[in-house]
Amino acid sequence: MKFYSRKWVKPENLNPHGSLFGGQLLSWIDEEAVIFAMCQLGDNRQLVTKFMSEINFVSSARQGDIIEMGVEVSACGRSSVTLRAEVRNKITRETIISIDRIVFVNLDAEGRPAPHGYLWPGEDIS
Amino acid sequence: MKFYSRKWVKPENLNPHGSLFGGQLLSWIDEEAVIFAMCQLGDNRQLVTKFMSEINFVSSARQGDIIEMGVEVSACGRSSVTLRAEVRNKITRETIISIDRIVFVNLDAEGRPAPHGYLWPGEDIS
Amino acid sequence: MKFYSRKWVKPENLNPHGSLFGGQLLSWIDEEAVIFAMCQLGDNRQLVTKFMSEINFVSSARQGDIIEMGVEVSACGRSSVTLRAEVRNKITRETIISIDRIVFVNLDAEGRPAPHGYLWPGEDIS
Amino acid sequence: MKFYSRKWVKPENLNPHGSLFGGQLLSWIDEEAVIFAMCQLGDNRQLVTKFMSEINFVSSARQGDIIEMGVEVSACGRSSVTLRAEVRNKITRETIISIDRIVFVNLDAEGRPAPHGYLWPGEDIS
Amino acid sequence: MKFYSRKWVKPENLNPHGSLFGGQLLSWIDEEAVIFAMCQLGDNRQLVTKFMSEINFVSSARQGDIIEMGVEVSACGRSSVTLRAEVRNKITRETIISIDRIVFVNLDAEGRPAPHGYLWPGEDIS
Amino acid sequence: MKFYSRKWVKPENLNPHGSLFGGQLLSWIDEEAVIFAMCQLGDNRQLVTKFMSEINFVSSARQGDIIEMGVEVSACGRSSVTLRAEVRNKITRETIISIDRIVFVNLDAEGRPAPHGYLWPGEDIS
Repeated sequence: MKFYSRKWVKPENLNPHGSLFGGQLLSWIDEEAVIFAMCQLGDNRQLVTKFMSEINFVSSARQGDIIEMGVEVSACGRSSVTLRAEVRNKITRETIISIDRIVFVNLDAEGRPAPHGYLWPGEDIS
Repeated sequence: MKFYSRKWVKPENLNPHGSLFGGQLLSWIDEEAVIFAMCQLGDNRQLVTKFMSEINFVSSARQGDIIEMGVEVSACGRSSVTLRAEVRNKITRETIISIDRIVFVNLDAEGRPAPHGYLWPGEDIS
Repeated sequence: MKFYSRKWVKPENLNPHGSLFGGQLLSWIDEEAVIFAMCQLGDNRQLVTKFMSEINFVSSARQGDIIEMGVEVSACGRSSVTLRAEVRNKITRETIISIDRIVFVNLDAEGRPAPHGYLWPGEDIS
Repeated sequence: MKFYSRKWVKPENLNPHGSLFGGQLLSWIDEEAVIFAMCQLGDNRQLVTKFMSEINFVSSARQGDIIEMGVEVSACGRSSVTLRAEVRNKITRETIISIDRIVFVNLDAEGRPAPHGYLWPGEDIS
Repeated sequence: MKFYSRKWVKPENLNPHGSLFGGQLLSWIDEEAVIFAMCQLGDNRQLVTKFMSEINFVSSARQGDIIEMGVEVSACGRSSVTLRAEVRNKITRETIISIDRIVFVNLDAEGRPAPHGYLWPGEDIS
Repeated sequence: MKFYSRKWVKPENLNPHGSLFGGQLLSWIDEEAVIFAMCQLGDNRQLVTKFMSEINFVSSARQGDIIEMGVEVSACGRSSVTLRAEVRNKITRETIISIDRIVFVNLDAEGRPAPHGYLWPGEDIS
């Protein structure tokens, strides 16, 4: 898994206990996953999040921490793509959250699932 | 399930496709669930999100929609509480997302799980 | 008065003295009032805030507080509706601010006041 | 009345109807009034908003508009100061909202009203 | 140079070290400069930032500080205008950052530089 | 130069003309540069931005664009580090802005420049 986007945890990202607000974290990983999916499938697509598998909040982050987000393709259907995601502390490499499957579906102009034509390495979609 | 907090979907909450950004939605439901848990267990507690079960994105919301968030207790352990959550369109009652289990753990001053002393109706924690 | 939406006061909502920023509070109650008015009159309407009566800042809120917002209809005209609003601490029930009258006007496509056809219980608008 | 701070109405400031969100406007004027009060009384003071008189929403603002905010002292007590505020379109000079009285109170370290020692021109506080 | 817009440094504007986040500061001065340019050239124009000269971060600001932003025209071309900007502490007058040249270009409907017809005092654009 | 963090341009990031707000862009690149510097020098350091060289706004970004940010070390002093930064469209690779030099200084507890002990490949700081 490759780690790209990084965040610096600032006061505006904290919950009242002084650690990273969980909703902020979910918002960041969701954006990163969408971006990754569009980079694979083309950014002119209308991709919508359909499903997230269970989320483990392994550890927390605190003000001043640098975190990084990793995403990789784990499965690929005709009109969908499934990603695995992880957020970890950039310095200590400690996992913060991991999500096994985030499923995006490609929609056509009428909002129906449409083939995306993307071939995942080693997979035959015919 | 009772529905409390409401949101009016404004331009600042949209993704580039013009529908409600999924990360925003997750952030809202996470905050609502924490608030609900603190209202049950007492707001002087240090509750942390430990787990979210799988999330189904059933439908979307668009600019100008009013959405409402519902949360209820589904299980209760000695140091944890498990909630069920749903977000729906306030007018059409159409479900937007549902999450079966969001688990919060009560921590003591050293960050270890600690009994919260809360009795869920019909449950015996002795 | 029924209380619906709840907020958890986070660092991003504070003024430099460490208490809830008054502008944030006014922004929250304004959104809640608009939502309430649209729930009564229908969310396809173009409602604009025309007037707020005087606002008493009774007490403050601090980081970590849970607050809740209550709104009710206090009067109803042909093209307007008047609400009463209150924000209070969810745990202590202490009032934070109260506003006697927030007046919304229903506009037609040309931006002129238009009858909203809503009958407030016990009121005859004929 | 002198007009200082200016805002450029961006998409993040809009309500779903495409005009400036009222809560955003109230938040802006509240911050401007606090700043003005601190510039008069000294920024080391703990000033809290105690009261706002009625607010007339005279006209609206739209995306791309430049608005400016004016504040002036209208009265001065021993521990309080009262301001008058107006927001208008910078180009057309059309009034957007006006507030006759915003009252700030100066608090001491225990949170009680304390004399601020400020002499408003022409006023004797002895 | 005249100073107009003011900001009150709140927790949401801080970096994790507790001082004003540099990116926030750059964002504020950029907005102020655009507003100033539109006030000179007319707000119906499509002005885009083309260039900023070097930026000196002279001093910092901390939570609770009031800062003010000053902008003035330093040069004027046929389709461009060049501004000088400075941000300083409102109370101590200490400079926070200064930028010698921010160049805006006026575009026509096709996105090409177009004469703005503005005459800077003492300058002849014929 | 390696490109890490990515952003998806959403309505909340736009100026009223519908393109990416320049201040938002500057805020993003500033955060990315700080993060990069801390990854090189250690995140327990107090790094402050001292200088940015001139900024060329080469092209713009629009709603829905994916942009990526690249940073690299260009020079290294005893207590400072100088970075070069570029933001480009992730899909088209078109440059959006480039900044030749962003200088960070390492401060000690008293706020004075302090050696950071970092050896840039090929450079001898003795």
